[in-house]
Amino acid sequence: MASNLVSARNIEFLLYEWLDVERLSSRERFAEHSRESYDALLELSAQLATDHFATHFRKSDEQEPTFDGTTVHLIPEIGDALKRFAEMDGFSLQADEEFGGMQLPATVGTAASTWFTAANIGTACYSFLTVANASLLVAHASDEIKQRYARPMFEGRFFGTMAMSEPHAGTSLGDVTSRAIPQADGTYRVFGSKMWISGGDHEIAENIVHLVLAKLPDAPEGTKGISLFVVPKFLVNEDGSLGERNDVVLSSINHKLGSRGTVNTAPVFGDGAFQPGGESGAIGFLVGEPHKGLKYMFHMMNAARLAVGTAATGTASAAYLKSLDYARSRPQGRALTTTDQATPQVEIIEHTDVRRMLLAQKSYVEGAMALALLCASLLDDERTAETEEARAEASKVLGVLTPIVKSWPSQWGQESTSLAIQVLGGAGYTRDYDVEQHWRDQRLNPIHEGTHGIQALDLLGRKILMDGGAGLMALAGRMEKTIAAARELGGEPSAYADQLKAQLDRIGEVTFGLVALGDPEKIMANASVYLEAAGHLVVAWIWLEQLVVAGTTEGDFYNGKRQAGRYFFATELPKITPMLDLVAAGDLTSYEMQDAWF
Amino acid sequence: MASNLVSARNIEFLLYEWLDVERLSSRERFAEHSRESYDALLELSAQLATDHFATHFRKSDEQEPTFDGTTVHLIPEIGDALKRFAEMDGFSLQADEEFGGMQLPATVGTAASTWFTAANIGTACYSFLTVANASLLVAHASDEIKQRYARPMFEGRFFGTMAMSEPHAGTSLGDVTSRAIPQADGTYRVFGSKMWISGGDHEIAENIVHLVLAKLPDAPEGTKGISLFVVPKFLVNEDGSLGERNDVVLSSINHKLGSRGTVNTAPVFGDGAFQPGGESGAIGFLVGEPHKGLKYMFHMMNAARLAVGTAATGTASAAYLKSLDYARSRPQGRALTTTDQATPQVEIIEHTDVRRMLLAQKSYVEGAMALALLCASLLDDERTAETEEARAEASKVLGVLTPIVKSWPSQWGQESTSLAIQVLGGAGYTRDYDVEQHWRDQRLNPIHEGTHGIQALDLLGRKILMDGGAGLMALAGRMEKTIAAARELGGEPSAYADQLKAQLDRIGEVTFGLVALGDPEKIMANASVYLEAAGHLVVAWIWLEQLVVAGTTEGDFYNGKRQAGRYFFATELPKITPMLDLVAAGDLTSYEMQDAWF
Repeated sequence: MASNLVSARNIEFLLYEWLDVERLSSRERFAEHSRESYDALLELSAQLATDHFATHFRKSDEQEPTFDGTTVHLIPEIGDALKRFAEMDGFSLQADEEFGGMQLPATVGTAASTWFTAANIGTACYSFLTVANASLLVAHASDEIKQRYARPMFEGRFFGTMAMSEPHAGTSLGDVTSRAIPQADGTYRVFGSKMWISGGDHEIAENIVHLVLAKLPDAPEGTKGISLFVVPKFLVNEDGSLGERNDVVLSSINHKLGSRGTVNTAPVFGDGAFQPGGESGAIGFLVGEPHKGLKYMFHMMNAARLAVGTAATGTASAAYLKSLDYARSRPQGRALTTTDQATPQVEIIEHTDVRRMLLAQKSYVEGAMALALLCASLLDDERTAETEEARAEASKVLGVLTPIVKSWPSQWGQESTSLAIQVLGGAGYTRDYDVEQHWRDQRLNPIHEGTHGIQALDLLGRKILMDGGAGLMALAGRMEKTIAAARELGGEPSAYADQLKAQLDRIGEVTFGLVALGDPEKIMANASVYLEAAGHLVVAWIWLEQLVVAGTTEGDFYNGKRQAGRYFFATELPKITPMLDLVAAGDLTSYEMQDAWF
Repeated sequence: MASNLVSARNIEFLLYEWLDVERLSSRERFAEHSRESYDALLELSAQLATDHFATHFRKSDEQEPTFDGTTVHLIPEIGDALKRFAEMDGFSLQADEEFGGMQLPATVGTAASTWFTAANIGTACYSFLTVANASLLVAHASDEIKQRYARPMFEGRFFGTMAMSEPHAGTSLGDVTSRAIPQADGTYRVFGSKMWISGGDHEIAENIVHLVLAKLPDAPEGTKGISLFVVPKFLVNEDGSLGERNDVVLSSINHKLGSRGTVNTAPVFGDGAFQPGGESGAIGFLVGEPHKGLKYMFHMMNAARLAVGTAATGTASAAYLKSLDYARSRPQGRALTTTDQATPQVEIIEHTDVRRMLLAQKSYVEGAMALALLCASLLDDERTAETEEARAEASKVLGVLTPIVKSWPSQWGQESTSLAIQVLGGAGYTRDYDVEQHWRDQRLNPIHEGTHGIQALDLLGRKILMDGGAGLMALAGRMEKTIAAARELGGEPSAYADQLKAQLDRIGEVTFGLVALGDPEKIMANASVYLEAAGHLVVAWIWLEQLVVAGTTEGDFYNGKRQAGRYFFATELPKITPMLDLVAAGDLTSYEMQDAWF
């Protein structure tokens, strides 16, 4: 029976027929791997996600985490699922062998992770945070920190957090006020309050490793004066055993709209609840050099933002497949042309408007899934492609695609889960069905790891304009290749290639036109609209890539690919014309709006 | 201090500067009224909504209704608020004097109701159902039923339900299987299970009057065989006192995503829990003639669908104003051009992208509000306009606008509440703020009282094509007048008039083109897209109307109107071009999609 979480057939198509991940085995890092090991991982992921993550999807929402002033209580299924995830080496899939890792390609690791995000994003989130934390340490911390803190995270024994935001400093990280005071022994004492910290406390891991942004006494103002520290809940002895309790406690936890299984907390460092070493302050260890904390964090950003996009994709995938199941089994109404009301009702999938809602979801979910896997393959290429040139090109394209893979699945995944509710009608509005929870879970994705608006500034400001358009040109180069391939096929793909080419040329013109506006506030006034147009353009390209691979191959699966691609080109891509018109016109309506006029 | 529920200044603008409701006093039905009585009602509504509806908004969500197998338990604040609503004659605002009503115009009644929907839609819903029920009885039931059941509903002592759907018959009402068996005394015994019935049981009213769709033994198949019955929870004696308990009980209640204060139930009629008169079956009283139940229900549909649109508008209004408050008080970040990070952070309303999200909300909320009030004024005109011709014209235009006033605020009110969450960022994702609840409450509106897809079939199939385009022509006639007035003003309004005229002509062409497709399934294949395009066109017209009224009047309020109108014409109206292109092309992608291809 087909899963209602992820289409394994689609993953197979994307990995093997499109991205050809098998070619990666020729690279030293992945030499141990083959389709056999990839398939084994994907099957194991599907099974574990189905049997131990999906099973407490509803329960983790109904019985959200509680905090009694001392301890965070989670339902036991969350810890149990993550223990099993650790047992399948889930925390170290992509890690270096040196740290016990499997060195799997990010492409395959991302494909595997869609199973867990689809099954239960609230539980899966603990593992993503932990892996991101450990990977950052491997890239920037001392060997001692790597061994003492990163290794147990890859083993799934310790969990990690990203303790960046503070109550008055969410998006504006330059304004953090947490302080770190250097000690004679080379450690630091950390003081400060953090906010919105996922996984900030719980008892489902042996230890919690906080990555904390804080300022040294001599720090410059703003973003250039932020350093990064490892602050563990329990200090770790040289032999790896747990030592003293460090001074990090929670002031409270947040009560969320969705994604409830992931406890979200307000931790306090150095408030005096504990006195490690008999003195005040949470003991911390500097990661890398002073004042470079934000740089290290941003180094992880591509992977973290891809993880959000993958979470959004998995969530939308489950909602889509569950609404598809419902549409196939729920009888209601008859064809518009049926005059004899004594005939039995038909399943609602027979109504065109229901198929429209399912097809839209399919085009969003499979578009987002392909985009996420492409970005993961760019992560692989950035690191392991054969030539310096190829690595640089992958890096450039990934830079431009990162705000898109973060924002597009978040935005259209929301629309997709909303359509899933609509397919179910009144039933979809009850908590008897999962779709409403997926819709609530999804709403987090355009907010965390940089809001939608921040992605827009990143794309247009940093990734396109500051870069002199080099990233955009590299991406356009790839699109041109797809356009050429589609034109060679002729027929529909060729027509879609023309459509894509026209919009690609247009976005190029529009981008150059923006520069002429001069004033940065005016250039960026419609950055969100630009982001959304660019996102749809990119996903149209991704669909054309899929259509080229599908070619004229026969069968239901390929017919479905072609129909979803047709849907995207007929209904979705044309939406960007008015968006680009607005940007091209240098519209200043929002810019000129005044507070007093609201 | 300005309210964070509704802009009283905007209501004033719409009622007096735009719709000129004062002119209604020249009509006999409204002769007792004047601006003084309207203002008094609006002020009283604002006060009651603020002091007794908004105050338990969160509590009614956190402590949703429970059912112990016998009794439904609601928090006491719901009953208290509705008691106060009854004391201000809220249930009989628009009712005939004959039934103790105030005979207020629907335009003013609808304006008043936005306060309650903004404050607490879950509580306000009980009154809407009751008024709809009582109004239907006044239109179609016997005098005895009117006196015994409608009158106490207008007094707010009895509450009403609309018991239409059944577990297997939601949208497809022709498939209801509830039965009504005629008795020798002229009453009926009703048997059957209903589903999705709001307010189906509780103890906050003296009695509950169910309007039940059921089939008589000799009923024809399908929609033409459905009759309508009054089935009270307690039978009512001739003197108005409560008599025996009737045989209607609940099998269960539904647990919803939002709008939780309104208990949603699955009632069972005639299951034997009670034996009224010592016999089996719930005692019911036929409304009007046999087999005409659906016709009577549809008679109320314009008002009921307007009520949904008004609920969606009120919900979006509260979320908008609450996010505006937040944006004015939350410091975060600095201007893009600020290089000195030692300067204080600015309130987020100073960021263009935040103003964009607020301005979008303003354009949706004030567009929807104006649309709702216009439809209410058409209800008034349909009933009381001076000439037969004017009444017929109002009726035609209202017919076309009804699926739009139901669906447009529901769809864009969702986008609007989502933007409210986004303005708050992480805070918006917590239950510490109201916006997430408004977003959940809002999600019901595209589902109940006919789903979005049903509105699309109603607009394109029934209201436009079956009518030979007469309704569309009547609406176009009104738009042409606005276009002429805007052109006379010159400047921006004149340019918007040209933009509107082009899209109006286009939709006319596209509509005629559709007819040529022949096959009803093909004609209706993109009915939802057509609905959404038509909705945006109508709201653009509504904005042009407002811009014509605002003219060049100075002041913050009028500047705000012009800026929001500018936003709608720059960002929103252009979205319909690709939609109409799709419809014009007779796109069959969804129609041709096959089950096996998903």
